[in-house]
Amino acid sequence: MQPDLHSRALAAHTLHQFRTLSPLTHCMTNDVVQTFTANTLLALGASPAMVIEPEEAGQFAAIASALLINVGTLTQARAEAMRTAVEQARIANTPWTLDPVAVSGLDFRRRFCLDLLALQPAAIRGNASEILALAGMSAGGRGVDTTDTAASALPAALALARQCGSVVVVTGEVDYVTDGQRTVSVTGGSPLMTRVVGTGCALSAVVAACCALPGNALDNVASACSWMKQAGQLATARSQGPGSFIPAFLDALYNLNAEEYA
Amino acid sequence: MQPDLHSRALAAHTLHQFRTLSPLTHCMTNDVVQTFTANTLLALGASPAMVIEPEEAGQFAAIASALLINVGTLTQARAEAMRTAVEQARIANTPWTLDPVAVSGLDFRRRFCLDLLALQPAAIRGNASEILALAGMSAGGRGVDTTDTAASALPAALALARQCGSVVVVTGEVDYVTDGQRTVSVTGGSPLMTRVVGTGCALSAVVAACCALPGNALDNVASACSWMKQAGQLATARSQGPGSFIPAFLDALYNLNAEEYA
Amino acid sequence: MQPDLHSRALAAHTLHQFRTLSPLTHCMTNDVVQTFTANTLLALGASPAMVIEPEEAGQFAAIASALLINVGTLTQARAEAMRTAVEQARIANTPWTLDPVAVSGLDFRRRFCLDLLALQPAAIRGNASEILALAGMSAGGRGVDTTDTAASALPAALALARQCGSVVVVTGEVDYVTDGQRTVSVTGGSPLMTRVVGTGCALSAVVAACCALPGNALDNVASACSWMKQAGQLATARSQGPGSFIPAFLDALYNLNAEEYA
Repeated sequence: MQPDLHSRALAAHTLHQFRTLSPLTHCMTNDVVQTFTANTLLALGASPAMVIEPEEAGQFAAIASALLINVGTLTQARAEAMRTAVEQARIANTPWTLDPVAVSGLDFRRRFCLDLLALQPAAIRGNASEILALAGMSAGGRGVDTTDTAASALPAALALARQCGSVVVVTGEVDYVTDGQRTVSVTGGSPLMTRVVGTGCALSAVVAACCALPGNALDNVASACSWMKQAGQLATARSQGPGSFIPAFLDALYNLNAEEYA
Repeated sequence: MQPDLHSRALAAHTLHQFRTLSPLTHCMTNDVVQTFTANTLLALGASPAMVIEPEEAGQFAAIASALLINVGTLTQARAEAMRTAVEQARIANTPWTLDPVAVSGLDFRRRFCLDLLALQPAAIRGNASEILALAGMSAGGRGVDTTDTAASALPAALALARQCGSVVVVTGEVDYVTDGQRTVSVTGGSPLMTRVVGTGCALSAVVAACCALPGNALDNVASACSWMKQAGQLATARSQGPGSFIPAFLDALYNLNAEEYA
Repeated sequence: MQPDLHSRALAAHTLHQFRTLSPLTHCMTNDVVQTFTANTLLALGASPAMVIEPEEAGQFAAIASALLINVGTLTQARAEAMRTAVEQARIANTPWTLDPVAVSGLDFRRRFCLDLLALQPAAIRGNASEILALAGMSAGGRGVDTTDTAASALPAALALARQCGSVVVVTGEVDYVTDGQRTVSVTGGSPLMTRVVGTGCALSAVVAACCALPGNALDNVASACSWMKQAGQLATARSQGPGSFIPAFLDALYNLNAEEYA
């Protein structure tokens, strides 16, 4: 069965909510994508904050609207701070999102992510290799790249969503978003997005922020995917390569017009 | 009493000095803004260096022209290295500047910043909430954003400047700069600057570098504010959103012409 | 004797190989240049990965095509992870490259780099001051800048290449590349490249990736220098300052055409 396409009217509706509520998004993310992640959230109208010291991370996770955990440059010290933040987030009912970067190839971060799954992430966002690895199905990853198509990881995403009670996103040429019952697909984007570091990581931050919105979680998360694919497509049309893509992408996110977009 | 507007002739004069002396600026700053901070200093003609290991930070603070301490992503280990650097900076008469990012909402960094105030920063740069919190006056901050206007923090800035013997900058729609005796205001800029991460942090680095210049410290620091507001205004006019703002801003800083500017 | 100019036909040939093989490049680099380094590698068609936790860094260095060690923001903890990664890289025959950032002025990192030299880097890339310091010859550095010309460090580069069995690159207005027997020079580039943070560090990452290619190591490394100088020159012609240089540079790398380039 082919998943339904996420409606652009719904994406436009969520965008309006997002800008109105401006979620305060606590990002514990990797060293490579911090700036791009912050600028992506700012362009969409959210308020990002990167807080990493264990005491502070716990304090801040409780007052933030949403929390992102991205394990791209995980260290032992950072893992402990992340765990504290997730625990405080749960006590405060702050939804948290997991980005299991390169979890298929590296044991330390896979163990860490599998442990965290017991703490009920609101959402999980990864490529096919990462979602397959997290669901305990066979997978091959080469660094942070995937060697599987998003559709091939759909059974793993469904299993993971049911196991954790999470919305699971598998990104690729087509994105799939599932809550274990219903699945939607999101099309658009461009191959140039894979030649710029951090587009996936930044999407995870937007997914995290969308988990703070009222309404249906699956639809809100699918809207995040839709904005990024839409901006990626617009930016590709206006750029000469991955360098000019970056400013064009942030401009496109900033200028996404809820009405025009629908 | 309305503070005097900082003269653009003075800003142009300081810019000429800045480019001639090219202050070697030791930045101990947060993970999110490192690149933008370095590129801002380079565009203006300074020489940035990020050195963070305790032994090295102490050694380097003593040979640098100026030191910046920004607590945006403070950790226990980083706090100790910063303290060592500030202590060595004082012994070597290297002026140091404090950026108390989000100090109003997080206890660990507030304690750290309050401790550091005893070590006589040459300058302090924050938004209204941060300056109010540092002065021990009531404040509300939401993440790194301020919920107060710069003018409302002017009494706190004056008190802080007198207490520490520092030049204090409160940034906002209008920037205020005071040494506790004299206060000047700086206008310009654009709201787009708040949709790009690091414009405030980068200003703090430029303020730090300006503390290495000869002449009046208050005037030199106000000139730093003036360059950033001027470049922000030029860049906004030449950009389609926060993405294209970033390169346009660095270009504008690089091309600020001392004569034309005056 | 004047070193031969590296031929552009050879640079074009190496570029074709680079894009075909897409080296998986493990970068352990400084906090300031992570994003720009990753985007540079992606623009050229390589696959970057930043992995820093000691257990993971060792595991990943063994499966990567190449490893980069850049000491720009070295810490005690990072130094230990880097040493583990280099040791595992050697066992797995993964070539590793050293960028000794600012080694001339800071004792902690100089001791670390001198220790690492015993572990036979495939390549070393630095400015004149850094190469002079590493070779134990007198040098003066001011922060990360050099106070010596590249040509003046050529004897040091030759000595270092023979001592370590490495290809050594001294960058400057002209780049020199030597394996201790043969030396080639690479011209091009523009002064604007020194007003953007990370162009040297990104070159080191490309040098590291080129060490994974088949063929002559000296020629492959010189080709990396050639691509960066060529893209720098193109980008300077298309930009209004260091801000617009950055996207133009990444676009130029992405669009470098092997045939046209020759």
